[in-house]
Amino acid sequence: MEAKLLLYKKPKLKKPVLIQGLPGIGNIGKIVVSYLIAELNAEKIADIVSPHLPGLVLISPDNVVEPLTIEVYLYKGKGRDLVLVTGEAQPISDFGQYECCNLLIDFCEEFGISEVVTVGGYGIGRQVKEPKVYGIVTSENLVKHYEKYGVVFQKENTIGTIIGMNGLLLTFAKMRDIRGICLLAETLGYPLLSDPKAAEQVIKILMDMFGLKVNLEKLEEAVKDLDRLWRHLEEQTRKMHEKKGVSEYSSYIG
Amino acid sequence: MEAKLLLYKKPKLKKPVLIQGLPGIGNIGKIVVSYLIAELNAEKIADIVSPHLPGLVLISPDNVVEPLTIEVYLYKGKGRDLVLVTGEAQPISDFGQYECCNLLIDFCEEFGISEVVTVGGYGIGRQVKEPKVYGIVTSENLVKHYEKYGVVFQKENTIGTIIGMNGLLLTFAKMRDIRGICLLAETLGYPLLSDPKAAEQVIKILMDMFGLKVNLEKLEEAVKDLDRLWRHLEEQTRKMHEKKGVSEYSSYIG
Amino acid sequence: MEAKLLLYKKPKLKKPVLIQGLPGIGNIGKIVVSYLIAELNAEKIADIVSPHLPGLVLISPDNVVEPLTIEVYLYKGKGRDLVLVTGEAQPISDFGQYECCNLLIDFCEEFGISEVVTVGGYGIGRQVKEPKVYGIVTSENLVKHYEKYGVVFQKENTIGTIIGMNGLLLTFAKMRDIRGICLLAETLGYPLLSDPKAAEQVIKILMDMFGLKVNLEKLEEAVKDLDRLWRHLEEQTRKMHEKKGVSEYSSYIG
Amino acid sequence: MEAKLLLYKKPKLKKPVLIQGLPGIGNIGKIVVSYLIAELNAEKIADIVSPHLPGLVLISPDNVVEPLTIEVYLYKGKGRDLVLVTGEAQPISDFGQYECCNLLIDFCEEFGISEVVTVGGYGIGRQVKEPKVYGIVTSENLVKHYEKYGVVFQKENTIGTIIGMNGLLLTFAKMRDIRGICLLAETLGYPLLSDPKAAEQVIKILMDMFGLKVNLEKLEEAVKDLDRLWRHLEEQTRKMHEKKGVSEYSSYIG
Repeated sequence: MEAKLLLYKKPKLKKPVLIQGLPGIGNIGKIVVSYLIAELNAEKIADIVSPHLPGLVLISPDNVVEPLTIEVYLYKGKGRDLVLVTGEAQPISDFGQYECCNLLIDFCEEFGISEVVTVGGYGIGRQVKEPKVYGIVTSENLVKHYEKYGVVFQKENTIGTIIGMNGLLLTFAKMRDIRGICLLAETLGYPLLSDPKAAEQVIKILMDMFGLKVNLEKLEEAVKDLDRLWRHLEEQTRKMHEKKGVSEYSSYIG
Repeated sequence: MEAKLLLYKKPKLKKPVLIQGLPGIGNIGKIVVSYLIAELNAEKIADIVSPHLPGLVLISPDNVVEPLTIEVYLYKGKGRDLVLVTGEAQPISDFGQYECCNLLIDFCEEFGISEVVTVGGYGIGRQVKEPKVYGIVTSENLVKHYEKYGVVFQKENTIGTIIGMNGLLLTFAKMRDIRGICLLAETLGYPLLSDPKAAEQVIKILMDMFGLKVNLEKLEEAVKDLDRLWRHLEEQTRKMHEKKGVSEYSSYIG
Repeated sequence: MEAKLLLYKKPKLKKPVLIQGLPGIGNIGKIVVSYLIAELNAEKIADIVSPHLPGLVLISPDNVVEPLTIEVYLYKGKGRDLVLVTGEAQPISDFGQYECCNLLIDFCEEFGISEVVTVGGYGIGRQVKEPKVYGIVTSENLVKHYEKYGVVFQKENTIGTIIGMNGLLLTFAKMRDIRGICLLAETLGYPLLSDPKAAEQVIKILMDMFGLKVNLEKLEEAVKDLDRLWRHLEEQTRKMHEKKGVSEYSSYIG
Repeated sequence: MEAKLLLYKKPKLKKPVLIQGLPGIGNIGKIVVSYLIAELNAEKIADIVSPHLPGLVLISPDNVVEPLTIEVYLYKGKGRDLVLVTGEAQPISDFGQYECCNLLIDFCEEFGISEVVTVGGYGIGRQVKEPKVYGIVTSENLVKHYEKYGVVFQKENTIGTIIGMNGLLLTFAKMRDIRGICLLAETLGYPLLSDPKAAEQVIKILMDMFGLKVNLEKLEEAVKDLDRLWRHLEEQTRKMHEKKGVSEYSSYIG
């Protein structure tokens, strides 16, 4: 069984760019892309279902089951169209992450997406008032272009590696001759601490880059809601996992 | 090598519903479905063999080897036909669980199964006299329908997530436009403790829901038998696993 | 990449039986089948290469590399032909074991093998003078047949489960309507302790069952040689594994 | 999703030999092949991308993303052509290593490569002034040939096993009737300690074997550069991994 992209609506896209944000350090990617989806009223056009996502499902407050997927939304912009990718989890194995990126990059090729932006956090172990947003690009000659929007490029890069789908999708883009950037916002880097300030810096850059109008006033509130949901889910999941131990054990002996 | 559904008999089904119960918290799903199979004298029509089930086989008291499979039974009811799914274990990896659910949902589509019920336990850490049975549905507009049969829907859901095949099968159903419900009975939630009372509550709801006549008198005895078998298997498995350590080790050096 | 059976010589077989013995408790299966191969001068006809075998290779004393495979030998008997299956290791994952058994059972079907015997140990935690050999069969009506050769069938089976390829191959046989037996010899069950006495009991039964003439005098010596090889390999493997830690680590940072 | 060999240039090869060196004990393989590539000015002709390589990407000092791949270079020699295989990491699972070796050996067959050399370290727990280079071959009759170049063959082999792609590629070669040798240089065997002296011994042997002219003066400096890079990456990776813990955790609860 392989991961699949379920396309609900074949889009016609105008100079499209894909922006991916998933849970991670400071949850910056997830916050940025979820907020854009909500504020821009983007429409869901596809889900990636993967057997390498965690084997659990979510339940909404109204008792309805929700699959865990990588979600793909479309926003028809004035200048360019945005394909926004997010989800409540990353695949749990390196293999699953490779597979999802492969589906996304095939999607990019099929629909003529010429630019890929991935969003994540760069844990620096302390809080700063104005978090910088560092850039890692698919080609050196893109540095000047992205610097115009306030992205910082280190003189002698000290980040070294990018872990997870933020890095993988970017190298897949590079190997298919799609240009792109990974935006890494400075953040404290503590467990389970969402960082709205760092997210705000990234959103401002994206607004400038793609001519978006986004009201940032509700961001802090939105992050509080997300955090409430996460804490809630975390508690339930921990409880269920303790039970899962039981279930797995009994499944071995039963 | 992929999991396969071995169909022994192509069924003609009348308004069929699939009911799945596997080992888990309080073993409620397994007890419910096994008891229905025995009491309704249901006929085995298929086995799912999966390389992601544990790499062991069972031995019956008369020294005959039995494969570990997900078993599919059919009961031709007066009103509707029941497809009953159970087994002695769940696949051991999340991937294997996705794969099995995929086979089951393909089976549902092929044979026009329009409703899926999964049965599990909801560990609450204490014993209650009359365990409630909570419902999680594929669509909000099913709440009223299932409430008629005594299923409880929380005002503001606090369960959060469902782990394993109970949740996965339900979201697969939802994505194929098959309606369904996960029934989670309140139970203590301790390891290896089967809960016949919680199972009884679920069976009563299913009897009402699908117009079944089931004699509940033998339930407590049946659970004792199951527990005896499980304890027995557990002991042997533990012993064998200690040996397995040996075998695996020697297999590395030999 | 899937496991493959490399067939070097398409055999014509006379009422063939397959006998499988792999490393495990007391190494009984491995000893029995290796000794039969040597004494009967059986010819290698196939190798199963599997990406789920351990990722290492053996080196012979004359500095030649040897792949780790599941090896298949043929002995053209007077009455019946024997297909003898052994190897220096079992696949390390349950999935890999399912896959290998699948290849073996396909091989059985293709070449008309009508009986499968798997050989293992049953750890009882103490040494006995004359180890019994217990049988687990694919069908109850085979009990009488095998009892004739001294195989013991427990009145009320207390073994419960069989772990690894011994059990899996037998259930695969059962599902393809091939009859078979798993022979489990009583043995101490301590790590890395080969048990030539238990192996001898199994060989005697197989000699009787299939009309074989095998000189048992060299058995004890052969087991000593095997044990020397195993201890040697174990030591090297442990050393190399300590190094593997290094290598894996450096592979992560390099 | 399977590993793939991306061939950028279909080569015409003259009596070609493949030399593989990857990170491992003392990083000898990686150093030897990287140094040959740099000094011989070899050209990249292919990349193997594999979903079983670590799920991270590298960032060059100029902020450009680099995929983690197994890299294949070509050097057009006077006598024979060299295909040089290296990379910053080995696949992290045994399965992934089998799969990569399979791709490499298919490549060998397609382009008529008749000899395979793999390079690694043999940890002996102490430093020696003049590290010996031991050989393990695909066939005993190659011993005399390789001894001419100073490769040492143990009278009674005590290495026992080879772990990882060094051994696997050699057995794959053997099974396809391609001759070959694994060169294992004596080295201390401590974590993360590159051993330029041992690497030098191997390069000298390869120079002699294939008539190469390589300036060894820059070797020590090159190893220092590599070590600086590795230490740098290690630090970043450790930091990121601590963050990964966070990200993975939050991905479970989000």
